[in-house]
Amino acid sequence: MARVLTPRAEDFPRWYQDLIAKAQLADNGPVRGTMVIRPVGYAIWERMQGDMDARIKEQGVQNAYFPLFIPENYLRREADHVEGFSPELAVVTHAGGKELAEPLVVRPTSETVIGEFMAKWVDSYRDLPLLLNQWANVVRWELRPRTFLRTTEFLWQEGHTAHATEADAREHARDIHKNVYEAFMTEMLAIPVIPGRKTKGERFAGATNTMTVEAMMGDGKALQMGTSHELGQNFAKAFDITYSSAERTVEHAWTTSWGTSTRMLGGLIMVHGDDNGLRLPPRLAPVQVQIMVVKAGEGVTEAAEQLRKDLKAAGVRVKLDDRADIPFGRRAVDAELQGIPIRIEVGPRDLANGNAVVARRIDGTKSPIALAEVANAVVAALKADQQRLYDDALAFREERTVEVKTLAEAIEASQTGFARVPWSAVGEAGEKEANGKAITVRCL
Amino acid sequence: MARVLTPRAEDFPRWYQDLIAKAQLADNGPVRGTMVIRPVGYAIWERMQGDMDARIKEQGVQNAYFPLFIPENYLRREADHVEGFSPELAVVTHAGGKELAEPLVVRPTSETVIGEFMAKWVDSYRDLPLLLNQWANVVRWELRPRTFLRTTEFLWQEGHTAHATEADAREHARDIHKNVYEAFMTEMLAIPVIPGRKTKGERFAGATNTMTVEAMMGDGKALQMGTSHELGQNFAKAFDITYSSAERTVEHAWTTSWGTSTRMLGGLIMVHGDDNGLRLPPRLAPVQVQIMVVKAGEGVTEAAEQLRKDLKAAGVRVKLDDRADIPFGRRAVDAELQGIPIRIEVGPRDLANGNAVVARRIDGTKSPIALAEVANAVVAALKADQQRLYDDALAFREERTVEVKTLAEAIEASQTGFARVPWSAVGEAGEKEANGKAITVRCL
Ligand SMILES: [Zn+2]
Ligand SMILES: [Zn+2]
Repeated sequence: MARVLTPRAEDFPRWYQDLIAKAQLADNGPVRGTMVIRPVGYAIWERMQGDMDARIKEQGVQNAYFPLFIPENYLRREADHVEGFSPELAVVTHAGGKELAEPLVVRPTSETVIGEFMAKWVDSYRDLPLLLNQWANVVRWELRPRTFLRTTEFLWQEGHTAHATEADAREHARDIHKNVYEAFMTEMLAIPVIPGRKTKGERFAGATNTMTVEAMMGDGKALQMGTSHELGQNFAKAFDITYSSAERTVEHAWTTSWGTSTRMLGGLIMVHGDDNGLRLPPRLAPVQVQIMVVKAGEGVTEAAEQLRKDLKAAGVRVKLDDRADIPFGRRAVDAELQGIPIRIEVGPRDLANGNAVVARRIDGTKSPIALAEVANAVVAALKADQQRLYDDALAFREERTVEVKTLAEAIEASQTGFARVPWSAVGEAGEKEANGKAITVRCL
Repeated sequence: MARVLTPRAEDFPRWYQDLIAKAQLADNGPVRGTMVIRPVGYAIWERMQGDMDARIKEQGVQNAYFPLFIPENYLRREADHVEGFSPELAVVTHAGGKELAEPLVVRPTSETVIGEFMAKWVDSYRDLPLLLNQWANVVRWELRPRTFLRTTEFLWQEGHTAHATEADAREHARDIHKNVYEAFMTEMLAIPVIPGRKTKGERFAGATNTMTVEAMMGDGKALQMGTSHELGQNFAKAFDITYSSAERTVEHAWTTSWGTSTRMLGGLIMVHGDDNGLRLPPRLAPVQVQIMVVKAGEGVTEAAEQLRKDLKAAGVRVKLDDRADIPFGRRAVDAELQGIPIRIEVGPRDLANGNAVVARRIDGTKSPIALAEVANAVVAALKADQQRLYDDALAFREERTVEVKTLAEAIEASQTGFARVPWSAVGEAGEKEANGKAITVRCL
């Protein structure tokens, strides 16, 4: 097969951009750093969103929607925060044909607005816990944009919760970290993640504890796939989120926040992609099986349509590709690029033997299967391939992770992968030294 | 029962705002004209979105996401358009800590960006039809804001499609109008809508035909619930959306666009609300049944929990309210305000007789039902009440619609409802005269 993408080994960043363009996942937007998420990419995001949303709701969280525009003065309330954000802000100064009296910030997060409204909505201990989540677009001006990974505008979910006790807040932050994020990445994305805590230096501003899920990409580097923060009473004090207790005393609430974003699409590509394109975990894939009419005539279209019905009845997400006017080779390359887990090729020759060819994207095998057995074979293959992707990613990570005893060894090992080193051998001084070499302590 | 809201008959606009506040559907945002959609309101929007999204996808349309920021020069390409919009625009002039070389407009619609990308993506007739939809937030500066109906920021879906022929574009615009919008409003929202075409004067700028679905609100006024436009080749010419035909000639595409928004939430309230609050159509309701523990003890909580299981098994969206520390009356008022279709009250007295009380929000009846029969009774009631809401709204509209022969009679009748008048008796001159009296020709 002709070379479709820059090989990963040759130039990983270039391979990544090539894949996104050729699989039609996204395009650059007209404003630098923004992206257009094309239907192929957006369908994956919708599947992510749907599955994660259900897991979030199982934790008792409710969705809401807060406004895009934030008065500039809101951001000043949380001093730590505004310092971190101001160079990243986009500011509206004109609206309705006039200059505004107070500039409006386009939300880099809805944290401040949500804090204001929590303070308004929470009155008594009976109003707690207040568990909110929002799916929305946010804007952070990006000087070195990279599709999905760092974009000026991105889509995300941000959870913000208020609790009556520290213990309840802590339990919630951990449930999100483990039962939502870690479970979602493992079960749905087939990405082995390392759950852990961030060092004090890497913590979110204002957090008393930041928990992260970290994954190893195909170049041996780490990507933070999601974070869950305990904010102690810091945030509640900044926004005056208080409640009257059962004993009628006035107390500050304990809050948490947690988020994941379209960056997960970048992680997905970098963990599972290969030199032929993306490989989608079957559970996530919007289209699990593409049935391809190799050449029309001799009952091929009818057989393909029958297979489509069989697979649909078996609960498989299936698409029929009968575009016989487009060369078969080109369609097959596109299906590989987009990472569709299984391709079923229906052509006159195999059909004469009562077979169709089942081509599996994940393990690369291709074999003729009797028409009546295709549905069962496909269901089994989808299940096995979901596991296989996970196992492969895990094996890759373990191969590139070494146990070391000293900071010097850890820095050496980080050139090609992860190093597991006792924190006692690093410490805050060691962390600074490592940072100087563009290495971060990802999690404890 | 004490008066909860300003009565509709006393002050309809005030009743509307009261209901939104007390049912906790939405709050005003910190920036004038913006809104916070609270969990109770957002859950309704999510149900609307899910159902309509499935209908849109059945039409072969794919979702995508386009950027929030649009370079100012994009809006100049479609002269008609920019004139209509410029006083409504919000403009970003500063970002990343600097003044921008070119100001960015916060999208009032993604039409122009989608036009640009369609031109880029469409090459041959094989790429058509290209059927795209986006769910997103948009901003139009609003001088007289009203929650859900006219807000500076709102949520919507906008469909944009390109076709090879006028006939294909026309058929698509009509399918959306009829099979998506009209069907959704009728079947899901239980709102009888009048489908029709807009007059030339009321048409969308650039459209060759605008189709609308209009509904009568509880005050006899009309609300436009959705529109579907045929844009001829006007839009394709402005954005240079061309394709090479099978005969290898270069042709401009034929396009359509169509949209609905959070305004539908306003319509829902104004059609189905009454002096006790909202009444939700059972198919739409996020919570169809609220089981209420009137008073704990004597097996009440256990019986309530059993009913919850029975109803869940019967496919009902059910919520158990066992907050025995909040007065029952207050909880019942809240359930009525939020429009939950059925309340099941479980208390010691009825339980002693083997009953629970089923209170139906839509017809206002309340009756004891044997525990073992509750699930069947509820399923039947939900079905009947969906139909009843529709029938009531239709009867109300018909009562307030008169057939007239002249423009003068139509203007008279419009004070309290709709008038159906032959277009030949109105014409463009008559339409201007009516507009002068704040009356619009809603549809043909
Ligand atoms: Zn305080
Ligand atoms: Zn042209």
